Amino acid sequence: MLERFKVPEKDRVYVSHERIRAVTEAIFRHSGVPASEAAGSTDVLIKNDLRGVESHGVSNGLRRYVSEYGSGKLNPTPNFKVTRESKTTMTIDADRALGTQVGPWAMQQAIDRAKEFGMGAVAVTNSGHLAGCGYYAMMAAQQGMIGHCMTAGGSHQTVPTWGSKPVMGTNPIAWAAPARKMPPFLFDVATTQVAGNKIGLARRTGAKIMGGWIADLEGEPILEEIDPPNNGEYYLLHIGGTRENGSHKGFGLALMNEIICNELSGYGPGPIRRTPGGHFFQAYDIEAFTDREKFLDDMDELLKYIADVPPAKGFERVVYAGLLEDEDEKKRTNDGIPYHREVIEWFESYCAEAGIECDLR
Amino acid sequence: MLERFKVPEKDRVYVSHERIRAVTEAIFRHSGVPASEAAGSTDVLIKNDLRGVESHGVSNGLRRYVSEYGSGKLNPTPNFKVTRESKTTMTIDADRALGTQVGPWAMQQAIDRAKEFGMGAVAVTNSGHLAGCGYYAMMAAQQGMIGHCMTAGGSHQTVPTWGSKPVMGTNPIAWAAPARKMPPFLFDVATTQVAGNKIGLARRTGAKIMGGWIADLEGEPILEEIDPPNNGEYYLLHIGGTRENGSHKGFGLALMNEIICNELSGYGPGPIRRTPGGHFFQAYDIEAFTDREKFLDDMDELLKYIADVPPAKGFERVVYAGLLEDEDEKKRTNDGIPYHREVIEWFESYCAEAGIECDLR
Repeated sequence: MLERFKVPEKDRVYVSHERIRAVTEAIFRHSGVPASEAAGSTDVLIKNDLRGVESHGVSNGLRRYVSEYGSGKLNPTPNFKVTRESKTTMTIDADRALGTQVGPWAMQQAIDRAKEFGMGAVAVTNSGHLAGCGYYAMMAAQQGMIGHCMTAGGSHQTVPTWGSKPVMGTNPIAWAAPARKMPPFLFDVATTQVAGNKIGLARRTGAKIMGGWIADLEGEPILEEIDPPNNGEYYLLHIGGTRENGSHKGFGLALMNEIICNELSGYGPGPIRRTPGGHFFQAYDIEAFTDREKFLDDMDELLKYIADVPPAKGFERVVYAGLLEDEDEKKRTNDGIPYHREVIEWFESYCAEAGIECDLR
Repeated sequence: MLERFKVPEKDRVYVSHERIRAVTEAIFRHSGVPASEAAGSTDVLIKNDLRGVESHGVSNGLRRYVSEYGSGKLNPTPNFKVTRESKTTMTIDADRALGTQVGPWAMQQAIDRAKEFGMGAVAVTNSGHLAGCGYYAMMAAQQGMIGHCMTAGGSHQTVPTWGSKPVMGTNPIAWAAPARKMPPFLFDVATTQVAGNKIGLARRTGAKIMGGWIADLEGEPILEEIDPPNNGEYYLLHIGGTRENGSHKGFGLALMNEIICNELSGYGPGPIRRTPGGHFFQAYDIEAFTDREKFLDDMDELLKYIADVPPAKGFERVVYAGLLEDEDEKKRTNDGIPYHREVIEWFESYCAEAGIECDLR
């Protein structure tokens, strides 16, 4: 994540992952989520925070989830229904589960199928926010497989190339692959110039929005650096930004995501249905293609080669996707996670009202 | 493809696809390729030309393939060897086949496995140029499936984010999905700002290279518009261009491609081995996830919705990946394919020397 999105030093409250985990689990349980699934959802969010992906941790997400449980939009005790399956695939109606509640289960189903048949995939509909895709892809990598995850949640946020009206959401994608000694590959991005949550983060951290990241309400890319606008006052741009700079590539990736998460899952066009879209989880068993031990050695050789590339002028080092996240995870596991004090204040005030013990300082 | 890469009006020679197909097949056969495989390779190249993807048709590719057959780098009569397989997967040593010679066969293997098990994938090593990925992904779409293809051929062309030395190739990716009445989705791009072949095309058409598309030999992005440099005088940049504009996203996509095409296939790191890398072909059976008829209706609804988005100021319409290519294919099937006269001159001079009949004007 770019430095500008990190919490400024003066606003940081460091909290151990054990403490924030305990309180987050208690908040999920307070919303009616069974204990083991509360722990599962919490693990998704805290792993994101540990890996430095705070756009998809507790800071932005939790208050929204609590409100969606409160309003009945999310079902805390869903029954997942298999609507179709084949030897390698499953399609699931998640009964209004939060994405973090169905996601770990769905990814494990894909992994189990891959163990038996070489590949496995699970498509999920009727589910809430997934909190990014990286966690699920990494589940496969941790079990010695290549993992892939996408979610098409949200719509009408992103202007297509040459268009004046928004169509899709930020449609994030992730792939992960294990290595032996080097930190694993973990590629986990929105198919927009910046993730939607990052505009909110920028408002909190006081960061600027770069030219070419977002568009005005006529769909014109804003090319100068500006303060983050309020919700409803901008649209996002696909990866690339402008057509000449390749935004059709980001737009095409986002549409691939929409087609697999929403049409292949049987849900239907997200931009037209306008309700929460689908998720997609896939695992490739390395042993189905090649020798896993050789793969791990080759990955070490490849990733070390990249990390050893001499940096360009003005930069300190070259990193691959997953390297900084792995370093963040080790550092934050030891030092605690730097939350914005405003986030901690929300936890404290919510817990006081709900009668939940909240020992974060 | 951007207008600047199209052959200028004054240099165009229109050739019917039947005529260019006949001569191209004859040239492949002259290199020792068996007739049915010569027809297969030719179909890949001519479909690319018909779809307006002339960067991956006969113009840039054929003279290189002929020279690689001549030098013994490519084997015109390869025996494909299955090095590993599972119920849904196959890994193939292609015995130095041109990518277009093994690709259609490999994709069909993936499709056949998907028919039986829901998904199928084939990884191929020891093979030459694939001529883009779109053709193979479309094979699946034409058989009512979702298709996916990648190739990691080439290396040391593209500078990683923050790096000063090139590591990977242009690492193209494609996905295709069918619709009922609307032209199919066909997303087929290099994971660089521009495909490598397009620099050559720009030299031929006299087009400029935009700022942010390529880097100098120290890895610094060239930010002003320039004439296309000669081979060896530039590096490519990943999708995004600069870090602030998201080049880590293009870099991550390219690395995902490298890992699946080269490490998962058992070949090993392309940037270190420095010989032709692997290809990857995957098919998803729509029926394994949902009802195919509903899927086709949903695709029509989605794609029409996108094509109907009002354009931004200065643009005529909004298109999705595959729409213009489909229109090009219809137009060029009727009117002929507009080749650069220099390309036709190469055909005529090669055929004269080889004693091949060449009736292109």
